Amino acid sequence: MQSLVEKAEILIEALPYIRRFFGKTVVIKYGGHAMLEPPLRETFAKDVVLLKYVGLRPVIVHGGGPQIGAQLERLGKPGIFVDGLRVTDDETMEVVEMVLGGTVNREIVGMLQRAGGRAAGLTGCDGSLLRVERKLMKGQDIGRVGHVVEVDPSAMEAISESGFVPVIAPIGLDSSGLTYNVNADEAAGAIAVALGAEKLVLLTDVEGVLDADGNRVSELSRKGALKYIDEKIIQGGMIPKVECCLNVLANGVPRAHIIDGRVLHAVLLEIFTDDSGVGTVFTA
Amino acid sequence: MQSLVEKAEILIEALPYIRRFFGKTVVIKYGGHAMLEPPLRETFAKDVVLLKYVGLRPVIVHGGGPQIGAQLERLGKPGIFVDGLRVTDDETMEVVEMVLGGTVNREIVGMLQRAGGRAAGLTGCDGSLLRVERKLMKGQDIGRVGHVVEVDPSAMEAISESGFVPVIAPIGLDSSGLTYNVNADEAAGAIAVALGAEKLVLLTDVEGVLDADGNRVSELSRKGALKYIDEKIIQGGMIPKVECCLNVLANGVPRAHIIDGRVLHAVLLEIFTDDSGVGTVFTA
Amino acid sequence: MQSLVEKAEILIEALPYIRRFFGKTVVIKYGGHAMLEPPLRETFAKDVVLLKYVGLRPVIVHGGGPQIGAQLERLGKPGIFVDGLRVTDDETMEVVEMVLGGTVNREIVGMLQRAGGRAAGLTGCDGSLLRVERKLMKGQDIGRVGHVVEVDPSAMEAISESGFVPVIAPIGLDSSGLTYNVNADEAAGAIAVALGAEKLVLLTDVEGVLDADGNRVSELSRKGALKYIDEKIIQGGMIPKVECCLNVLANGVPRAHIIDGRVLHAVLLEIFTDDSGVGTVFTA
Amino acid sequence: MQSLVEKAEILIEALPYIRRFFGKTVVIKYGGHAMLEPPLRETFAKDVVLLKYVGLRPVIVHGGGPQIGAQLERLGKPGIFVDGLRVTDDETMEVVEMVLGGTVNREIVGMLQRAGGRAAGLTGCDGSLLRVERKLMKGQDIGRVGHVVEVDPSAMEAISESGFVPVIAPIGLDSSGLTYNVNADEAAGAIAVALGAEKLVLLTDVEGVLDADGNRVSELSRKGALKYIDEKIIQGGMIPKVECCLNVLANGVPRAHIIDGRVLHAVLLEIFTDDSGVGTVFTA
Amino acid sequence: MQSLVEKAEILIEALPYIRRFFGKTVVIKYGGHAMLEPPLRETFAKDVVLLKYVGLRPVIVHGGGPQIGAQLERLGKPGIFVDGLRVTDDETMEVVEMVLGGTVNREIVGMLQRAGGRAAGLTGCDGSLLRVERKLMKGQDIGRVGHVVEVDPSAMEAISESGFVPVIAPIGLDSSGLTYNVNADEAAGAIAVALGAEKLVLLTDVEGVLDADGNRVSELSRKGALKYIDEKIIQGGMIPKVECCLNVLANGVPRAHIIDGRVLHAVLLEIFTDDSGVGTVFTA
Amino acid sequence: MQSLVEKAEILIEALPYIRRFFGKTVVIKYGGHAMLEPPLRETFAKDVVLLKYVGLRPVIVHGGGPQIGAQLERLGKPGIFVDGLRVTDDETMEVVEMVLGGTVNREIVGMLQRAGGRAAGLTGCDGSLLRVERKLMKGQDIGRVGHVVEVDPSAMEAISESGFVPVIAPIGLDSSGLTYNVNADEAAGAIAVALGAEKLVLLTDVEGVLDADGNRVSELSRKGALKYIDEKIIQGGMIPKVECCLNVLANGVPRAHIIDGRVLHAVLLEIFTDDSGVGTVFTA
Repeated sequence: MQSLVEKAEILIEALPYIRRFFGKTVVIKYGGHAMLEPPLRETFAKDVVLLKYVGLRPVIVHGGGPQIGAQLERLGKPGIFVDGLRVTDDETMEVVEMVLGGTVNREIVGMLQRAGGRAAGLTGCDGSLLRVERKLMKGQDIGRVGHVVEVDPSAMEAISESGFVPVIAPIGLDSSGLTYNVNADEAAGAIAVALGAEKLVLLTDVEGVLDADGNRVSELSRKGALKYIDEKIIQGGMIPKVECCLNVLANGVPRAHIIDGRVLHAVLLEIFTDDSGVGTVFTA
Repeated sequence: MQSLVEKAEILIEALPYIRRFFGKTVVIKYGGHAMLEPPLRETFAKDVVLLKYVGLRPVIVHGGGPQIGAQLERLGKPGIFVDGLRVTDDETMEVVEMVLGGTVNREIVGMLQRAGGRAAGLTGCDGSLLRVERKLMKGQDIGRVGHVVEVDPSAMEAISESGFVPVIAPIGLDSSGLTYNVNADEAAGAIAVALGAEKLVLLTDVEGVLDADGNRVSELSRKGALKYIDEKIIQGGMIPKVECCLNVLANGVPRAHIIDGRVLHAVLLEIFTDDSGVGTVFTA
Repeated sequence: MQSLVEKAEILIEALPYIRRFFGKTVVIKYGGHAMLEPPLRETFAKDVVLLKYVGLRPVIVHGGGPQIGAQLERLGKPGIFVDGLRVTDDETMEVVEMVLGGTVNREIVGMLQRAGGRAAGLTGCDGSLLRVERKLMKGQDIGRVGHVVEVDPSAMEAISESGFVPVIAPIGLDSSGLTYNVNADEAAGAIAVALGAEKLVLLTDVEGVLDADGNRVSELSRKGALKYIDEKIIQGGMIPKVECCLNVLANGVPRAHIIDGRVLHAVLLEIFTDDSGVGTVFTA
Repeated sequence: MQSLVEKAEILIEALPYIRRFFGKTVVIKYGGHAMLEPPLRETFAKDVVLLKYVGLRPVIVHGGGPQIGAQLERLGKPGIFVDGLRVTDDETMEVVEMVLGGTVNREIVGMLQRAGGRAAGLTGCDGSLLRVERKLMKGQDIGRVGHVVEVDPSAMEAISESGFVPVIAPIGLDSSGLTYNVNADEAAGAIAVALGAEKLVLLTDVEGVLDADGNRVSELSRKGALKYIDEKIIQGGMIPKVECCLNVLANGVPRAHIIDGRVLHAVLLEIFTDDSGVGTVFTA
Repeated sequence: MQSLVEKAEILIEALPYIRRFFGKTVVIKYGGHAMLEPPLRETFAKDVVLLKYVGLRPVIVHGGGPQIGAQLERLGKPGIFVDGLRVTDDETMEVVEMVLGGTVNREIVGMLQRAGGRAAGLTGCDGSLLRVERKLMKGQDIGRVGHVVEVDPSAMEAISESGFVPVIAPIGLDSSGLTYNVNADEAAGAIAVALGAEKLVLLTDVEGVLDADGNRVSELSRKGALKYIDEKIIQGGMIPKVECCLNVLANGVPRAHIIDGRVLHAVLLEIFTDDSGVGTVFTA
Repeated sequence: MQSLVEKAEILIEALPYIRRFFGKTVVIKYGGHAMLEPPLRETFAKDVVLLKYVGLRPVIVHGGGPQIGAQLERLGKPGIFVDGLRVTDDETMEVVEMVLGGTVNREIVGMLQRAGGRAAGLTGCDGSLLRVERKLMKGQDIGRVGHVVEVDPSAMEAISESGFVPVIAPIGLDSSGLTYNVNADEAAGAIAVALGAEKLVLLTDVEGVLDADGNRVSELSRKGALKYIDEKIIQGGMIPKVECCLNVLANGVPRAHIIDGRVLHAVLLEIFTDDSGVGTVFTA
């Protein structure tokens, strides 16, 4: 009995967090190890379903780079990357659509449903969710890679209000109806802004932002983040993630997080403990 | 970090129970030690607020016998009891209304609000919630004691749908507008039936129903309960409580529970663990 | 038949007033003789029920000074008053809650229901209706007496929209959850402002404001009222009532009235005749 | 002041009637002197507007025989009647439509609006309100006279729910779209049945049904009414009116009334006094 | 089969127009030959019903000059005109009401219903739709002719939202409740403005605005139109029509059209072809 | 102009069909040539968008056999078929999901959007739309091929009510969360029954059902269809399609059609011409 009471007390400890986020939207970019390793996948699914039941409105935006790479390899077609962005010819884009829309999206929907939730998947093409333009990389065309110029959240909201967790594959449409690959962090940020989300959470495979001594920084202001980039303390693939966070803050989302998806229940811990606990939070 | 993950797993363990009871009404008769001792009061309040936030619809019906007795004593007017029912003359009834409607009800509302919830109190007179007739005890008039003949839940539902936990003092009105004291278990049962509740929970100061050997019985069928009464294994003040449970089952409430209010978080444990854990559950 | 036609014509005379106030909220401070004498109580109840049926939204805020005094006396605890405000120690506050919330509120709800209406009672603690701070009197602490700093009308509105007349006991909560006695005129004024009421009506035991010659003044502007206070034509207990009226006018309520509750059907006459008929009206 | 109190008491006397009919539909056939004489017209309009404001849903169905006759005469075209039903050739029907739909209906709408109400007129052709078939009179074709075979109340209800009193001219359409004159009593009865009205009121130029001694009968059962017809105590033009009342009773309308439209405020008196007061009520 | 495919393609050609006007209100002034000649009447009715079914919200405002004239003649009372406006004495006004409200309005409703639509007629008096003031013509009183000063669209909107096409007779009320004849173009314009219509369409008996060479001008700006009036290229009865169009543009209606009602399906062609096709369009 | 009028008349001809199907659901199985050949694809998309705009509720269920075959071939993995059903091992199922969910579904959504419509794609896994069990073929396990045992239409309906055309890929889930390939005809039939559709339309690559002489049969009763199967006039792949149609009729869908998808605008012609025009209609 004693242990039951302790469990009850842990539930009760969650109450202030549940109250704080009741009815709020949280957009989660899902990718990396958290998407590839079974125990992490399972706890992620349960975390999201729990959030939905206790009154938050989680929205999942997923990537799928490794799966796309594996399928391209299977087809004997290795990918080319420029600055972390895949060069996407038409044939590659076809594979991107198949893998993101056909395999990865379905798997995430399925795993949320096995965890007891209700979920439905969309790509950014459904209901013109993600309207994009062709993205140039240092002035060069890198194929069917788009950046988001407009979000129409109505299909996604219809699904969310009907009690489902929307799971979004980051494929966008340009004005001629051509499909484009979109960076999942960027898609998640654009959706967070369009939905007036309470927070954006980027699941990564790192501890968070590290300072010059290699220690995790639990909170960073805009100014601090820009200074770190300037001083090359933040570098490489972390730069666009940090910029994505700063961008959503500038557009009215109160908090953005880079958290460590390799930790079991990382999402739940981020929501249900104080901000200093997991990863790095960016604040305006 | 390890301990955080364990906490997260305890939250996740609650998920199946949250799903099962999502949107369901649970009527809780609140009384006894759980209402009198500060630590029990506080955990009860947190439990109820948590239930409300995670999507259940708790309704509290409270008693107040000890407080009424204390006030009568203060006024130099001791109560008379017949078969556990207070004989209620007009002067006593005035005290009942003051104490139940003016003191106890407000305290419970206040303690739910301090625990972070939103609550609003009503007596059974408000909006003709509890329509009663004078109750005879073994053919004898015991004063202004009523039994419920009709429930109009509309004011209570308006409050519940606006996000408040309704807290009900068991005072009823007869057709002439005269007020009556109503047994809180009976009031809770009548309200559970009127609301189509998922369960009725009676908080008591005992472990549950005990068998002939004095061990708690975790589950009892209607037939089993009647046999126990017949064999005098169930006796005294437990009989009307058991009858109240059997009565709500017969009127469509799926489960009724007699649980031990002296246990910290008794309500939460009842909802969030298997039925065998706390008290006795009655099933049709 | 002739007399029936005359009666019909009196009904028809009410038509312009019914149209003018259709769907409008009227907050009535109920107290004094009108609350104590049976024939006045009964006509008040009928007046309010009629107003509700013909499309107005009456809200009743009641006092209860004499009843509190009587109960304190019964308990051998006489009250102390400073400038018309009760000094309220913890024990007195307990009695205030019992009497206002448990006795007086229930009686008013009951009498409206006997008059054929639907009513439900709340105290200012329910749903955090009245948020207060401790009030100092000439710089001195007079105990648990609060002044209203915020009104959350949502529970009251839920009840009103469900067809009930809300009956409010003027007890408030501070930010720590402690309860306070609130002057009923002040509570009524704060509620009138929060609801965007069409008018505030204070039922009193005087004819209205009297001029220097002792004649009732049927209408007073803000300027006129301040002049009367300045010239001590208005004095004593009338000053806070007049200030309450001026305050609601300053906060957007179009009209505030001090009327004579000793007159049968005073409320109905105030609504259904021209303003000059009953008491004093204050206009911005 | 005394007289004001008496007036207030007369208002209060209306309360039980207001409660009884709150939200109920009352269909009133308007015609005869009540439609022709200015003082009666004016009190009728005020009565209807008052009913609307105090929560009833009045629907007016009007005739217009005298006005049609006058217009036919002006055009040098006298009408022909068979058993109280106008023989209606095409040219006559054109006049019927002009007068009922163009003159009488507008006048009634206008007079309700001058009395402070909101009203909107329709004919039975609007929204296919009255679907009719050609009526034969003793096997003979009497032209464009129809009997109602179906009522589509949706346009009328849209108007009523938007706060307007619907005013209906009794012109119907057959399945080919041809228009027909419909007896106003019959149209009112069919509409009362279609709306599930609480009562049908036929305004006439007589006191009510008279017994063999010429005294008004205040209440008649179906059986009693049939006996009176059989014994020729009821005869002539009163027979179809009585049959209309019996017909609506048989179709679920609880009460039907034949009342004396020559009495000032006849409608108000019928609703706001006991049934014995005005005309004859028919009960199932 | 080939011809069926061609028909399907014609349906598909309409798709962009259906999309553009989906859910938009179009106010059509209906009069002239289109109202008098059977084949034009029938195609007009079908056009309007089709518009309603494919998602537009057509509102019809009709005139009736010829029918009024015919009826006045039948009654031996010829009309007098000043600058195209009928001098309207009381007797004439009575005829106007009978003919517009009783005959013409019903006929249009009937013809829309025969074409398979649902329609309901109102005059500008119903629900105080058209509030007018007496109009002076060059400073002279020309009787009961009004110009619109306020529009209350609520009854009309209730009908429209219930799935009916509103058909409006241009009769207005002044503040005393007196009825007035209103020019149908003006009434249609005022209603278009009040409803926030997408376009106003005036059906006329001319090709459109003609230029100095007698050729139809397909599009005219405000400036161009004023120049034409100034240069007397637009003159006579066309001037008020053009001014009506310019007026609605100035009040937020994006487009106003003068089209040739003598062409079969003129309304459908105007909506479902490019603007240059039919009549003259005025743009801001 | 003449040709414009003819076009208008063709639009008007569609009116009775628009009225008949207004607000009705039509489930269309889309596949075969109509999905593979550009001109047919384009007209199909326009047809569906037009249906949506004129008030029908089209739902598209698509196959993708050829595309799956092509992808399997590309991956060097030829499919095996038993009785027209693909034997589906896990690797094949992965390809099925990628192609149906990732490629084909997106393409159809994209083509509807390019045609001016709003569309959103789901697979039968989203929101547990298609709950299936493993299907045995003549008692033999043919891998991950399922038959539908339950349909949860809520996500699909949320999308449809938000103005989107739902496009469904026929992949189902069993109770353990494993995905299965579902025959698209069968999925369409199950969805038609679950939505209470007005009709089911199967687009095929044949003219319809042919009689013994090879002539198309425009209408077949249940009895007639069973006789044709019995007499082997209907055989091979046509048998399950006919059985699918008979099955939906038996479950309350009024009409089921097998139509020739090789005809331009086949869907539009089926809806907007008489049933005898295109393919074979089955009626109960």
